[in-house]
Amino acid sequence: MTVRTGTDLDVLYPEVQNFYARHMQLLDGGNAEGWADTFTEDGSFYSPSMPEPARGREVITAGVRKAAAALAEAGEVHRHCMFMSYLKPRDDGSFYVRSYTQVIATPREGQPRLHMMCVCVDILVRQDGELKVRERRVTRDDRP
Amino acid sequence: MTVRTGTDLDVLYPEVQNFYARHMQLLDGGNAEGWADTFTEDGSFYSPSMPEPARGREVITAGVRKAAAALAEAGEVHRHCMFMSYLKPRDDGSFYVRSYTQVIATPREGQPRLHMMCVCVDILVRQDGELKVRERRVTRDDRP
Amino acid sequence: MTVRTGTDLDVLYPEVQNFYARHMQLLDGGNAEGWADTFTEDGSFYSPSMPEPARGREVITAGVRKAAAALAEAGEVHRHCMFMSYLKPRDDGSFYVRSYTQVIATPREGQPRLHMMCVCVDILVRQDGELKVRERRVTRDDRP
Repeated sequence: MTVRTGTDLDVLYPEVQNFYARHMQLLDGGNAEGWADTFTEDGSFYSPSMPEPARGREVITAGVRKAAAALAEAGEVHRHCMFMSYLKPRDDGSFYVRSYTQVIATPREGQPRLHMMCVCVDILVRQDGELKVRERRVTRDDRP
Repeated sequence: MTVRTGTDLDVLYPEVQNFYARHMQLLDGGNAEGWADTFTEDGSFYSPSMPEPARGREVITAGVRKAAAALAEAGEVHRHCMFMSYLKPRDDGSFYVRSYTQVIATPREGQPRLHMMCVCVDILVRQDGELKVRERRVTRDDRP
Repeated sequence: MTVRTGTDLDVLYPEVQNFYARHMQLLDGGNAEGWADTFTEDGSFYSPSMPEPARGREVITAGVRKAAAALAEAGEVHRHCMFMSYLKPRDDGSFYVRSYTQVIATPREGQPRLHMMCVCVDILVRQDGELKVRERRVTRDDRP
């Protein structure tokens, strides 16, 4: 498969969706290095669940490892369901994307539940042909 | 970014998805005029939550203002999560789109919940290059 | 509308999304033959909800009929909300797609609920120009 790149919406939008699908599946699968690699080296991550923003791949990797260990301990699986992505290229060549994200939590042998409803604002950039998250700002609907 | 238009599925489908993302984010953000502007001037909206169909931008604008005020009063955020869009162009140049839509409600400092599960059937048209909703028919799964 | 086919991600991804939308809407609408026709003649379906895999359109059709009758009896509507599709073509010309799927259940006059959270791994093939599911493997998050 060729991934054509460009700034036409019809070429870019499917690439962004496929990127996010892989990105979130890496996270939910506990693949800390794979997940961190979908950020730029100096990528930053602002989330109300974290006392301060995570900056850089090392910090992001450590955060996923910790979260994955806590989920394994709790016997829960989390799925980050991201959709409703509104994509808008910016003048500097980066891409603004504002999406809705549901976090679904399922305990072993239990009922799945909608754990969190979030809005995710990303700045994506292209590096060596691949999309990367340079900045992410997550807000939770329960803490407006 | 260039938004190429056309009737090829691969050009049209991403445009429709980006349109819906912006469309629903305007609604959930309480931007009544912005939301109404994504309908045609004479756009109509059939919903089981409304005693009669809304027709025209003025009525649609007033409806969103009222709903936004009620949500603010209740201290709740709603998110319209639309996906599974099945797109089919029609002979008259308009587009039939049938989608699933979850309405997620989150009270301040509370748990998010799946408030409503709906099916949304739209007729989209292109006006001055932009997609607009000419007709929307929403059905709720709890009132079949 | 022309459905251009090809192996470029930007052409393929929207086609796959439109295919899945129709595919799941056929299932949720109880259209057993229409649903079975979106599988190859010898298509197979592995699901933890079934004692053994379903193989072939006849078995798949019978399964949907049975499920639709049970839902009608229970007065419930189910919606299969599939998203986060990660698409990767394979060397043999088929397509690997790994998606998240929420099953939403809504009783008549009742509240909708997140019934099941699943991961769906498909092998899609193209036959006579149309996408078909050759193999599906579903796992439930509550039974890891």
